[in-house]
Amino acid sequence: MTTLQMIEAAAGRLQGHIRETPMLTSPFLDELAGRRVLVKPECLQHTGSFKFRGAWSAISALSDAERQRGVIAYSSGNHAQGVAHAAALHGISSVIVMPSDAPRLKIDNTRALGGEVVLYDRSNESREEIGEALATERGLTLIRPYDEPQVIAGQGTTGLEIARQAAAMGVEQADVLVCCGGGGLTSGIALALEGHAPGLRTRPCEPEGFDDVKRSLVTGQIQGNTATAGNICDAILTPQPGSITFPIMHRLCGPGLTITEKEAMHAMALAFLRLKIVLEPGGAASLASALFRKDEIEGDSVVVVASGGNADPEVFGKALKFLT
Amino acid sequence: MTTLQMIEAAAGRLQGHIRETPMLTSPFLDELAGRRVLVKPECLQHTGSFKFRGAWSAISALSDAERQRGVIAYSSGNHAQGVAHAAALHGISSVIVMPSDAPRLKIDNTRALGGEVVLYDRSNESREEIGEALATERGLTLIRPYDEPQVIAGQGTTGLEIARQAAAMGVEQADVLVCCGGGGLTSGIALALEGHAPGLRTRPCEPEGFDDVKRSLVTGQIQGNTATAGNICDAILTPQPGSITFPIMHRLCGPGLTITEKEAMHAMALAFLRLKIVLEPGGAASLASALFRKDEIEGDSVVVVASGGNADPEVFGKALKFLT
Repeated sequence: MTTLQMIEAAAGRLQGHIRETPMLTSPFLDELAGRRVLVKPECLQHTGSFKFRGAWSAISALSDAERQRGVIAYSSGNHAQGVAHAAALHGISSVIVMPSDAPRLKIDNTRALGGEVVLYDRSNESREEIGEALATERGLTLIRPYDEPQVIAGQGTTGLEIARQAAAMGVEQADVLVCCGGGGLTSGIALALEGHAPGLRTRPCEPEGFDDVKRSLVTGQIQGNTATAGNICDAILTPQPGSITFPIMHRLCGPGLTITEKEAMHAMALAFLRLKIVLEPGGAASLASALFRKDEIEGDSVVVVASGGNADPEVFGKALKFLT
Repeated sequence: MTTLQMIEAAAGRLQGHIRETPMLTSPFLDELAGRRVLVKPECLQHTGSFKFRGAWSAISALSDAERQRGVIAYSSGNHAQGVAHAAALHGISSVIVMPSDAPRLKIDNTRALGGEVVLYDRSNESREEIGEALATERGLTLIRPYDEPQVIAGQGTTGLEIARQAAAMGVEQADVLVCCGGGGLTSGIALALEGHAPGLRTRPCEPEGFDDVKRSLVTGQIQGNTATAGNICDAILTPQPGSITFPIMHRLCGPGLTITEKEAMHAMALAFLRLKIVLEPGGAASLASALFRKDEIEGDSVVVVASGGNADPEVFGKALKFLT
């Protein structure tokens, strides 16, 4: 189980290796959202998403002997790039198991960053089974994308920065909106804020039809999605909340929010126009929630964790049409 | 004349009001450029460009009585937004004289930020004459876009940050590439680096056909451009270097670099893909120089000041085609 102390220890290991992302604002977004909007652009993190934090945390927490044998990960893309890059910077090898329908850009980048990519069919193969078989065969350590205490600790360092930056901007009470797949980032931020900014309440944001975390929080039991693909927010499509992440989210998070694909694309366009940052659909679910679900949000300010920017150019071009 | 002391004083006035932009990197850009590339994304500054620094510096340096009468500025767009926003945050009025062919987005934003916009015809009217007439008539203080000591001091604060950030990243010898119009940012950075990082050499970057600063540095005398419009890098098209900025650049800057419109657009696409930031063509001239003029650059590292991100969506969409 991840603790606040593990998050603080991870922050020490990450120092000098991750980028402390700034906190962006725009008077135009404030007006649209009806409250002050503070955007944490994790798209500017190394490899274009927060995933590098968890990857570095997990790899740096291994023993020397484990680390030298190499690591393996399975991921729709952003965790893949984070693990491949963090492994290469540690001078070790990585195997990345990716769905064959992942965006081409993410597959190409993972290879270019030094990862050995193994593709699988998302509709009839289990990435967990493939990953564990390869791990056993080659002596690799599996770095799970979210249900892994040291990965959650790494993602939680985002929350330590939010606590410090929000306080410096005079914000002590606010909802913190987080794009949520398996819940690694959401649960890590929730733990960090519990310790360092108890007036900030973490809330998961998901695409309609893939709102497993929202429903699980309502029922208090883990709920799954019927579909596992077929939404533009590919970075945050997961079958169900993690067994480690869910109890943390259930104890600490406020109600979930859901947005449509069009709203995610519209939020991408507004992030382009008003913040000059590039978001991918799954990384814009939080901003979309701030802009288009404002009646479900409490307080004079809202914090938005814009979690990833690995957008395919064609998808981004479509998003820009929301401005014309 | 602007001095290092004025830049340091401006940094004090700007503290808490401007954003300290991070320093971004990408292994993909390093490979393309053949050296380590450190990108200072001033597109993430308030109003989407570095211009907010100079505007805040100049307005905050006025006497109370001057400030209360209001300010006026003339600008192709980014200085306009910077002055309008800085004036509004100071609680004073601003009049902005803009060319009628400026990108619509920049005109709209200037109005929305609280500026009173006065349009003029770039081909047969002088913005200087219009600006000075209005200033006299209404008692406004003219905030010139570059040939203004306190504006140069404000832009120079970018150089103080570069000196500190580059040193923290172990870079003490490098060319610093700056998108250059009238030379306010270039000369301010050059002064700051002379004092705080003498191993960093400032170099202006301009579009081909609008290389007045490059030619002026070669001859040692101010040279003008024959055309004043008709290039996609609208933010950095000026008739000639300023009479205050040029002597500073002549004393401190290395040779100028020029890039084509296509190279500026290609650099925008690569900034989208590798850094997840939005640049406008004139704000990408420096990155284009780093990527496409690498034989003209010295050293193992290069610093790129990516100065603005107020790109029209249609132009940005065209830039993305360089990725397909």
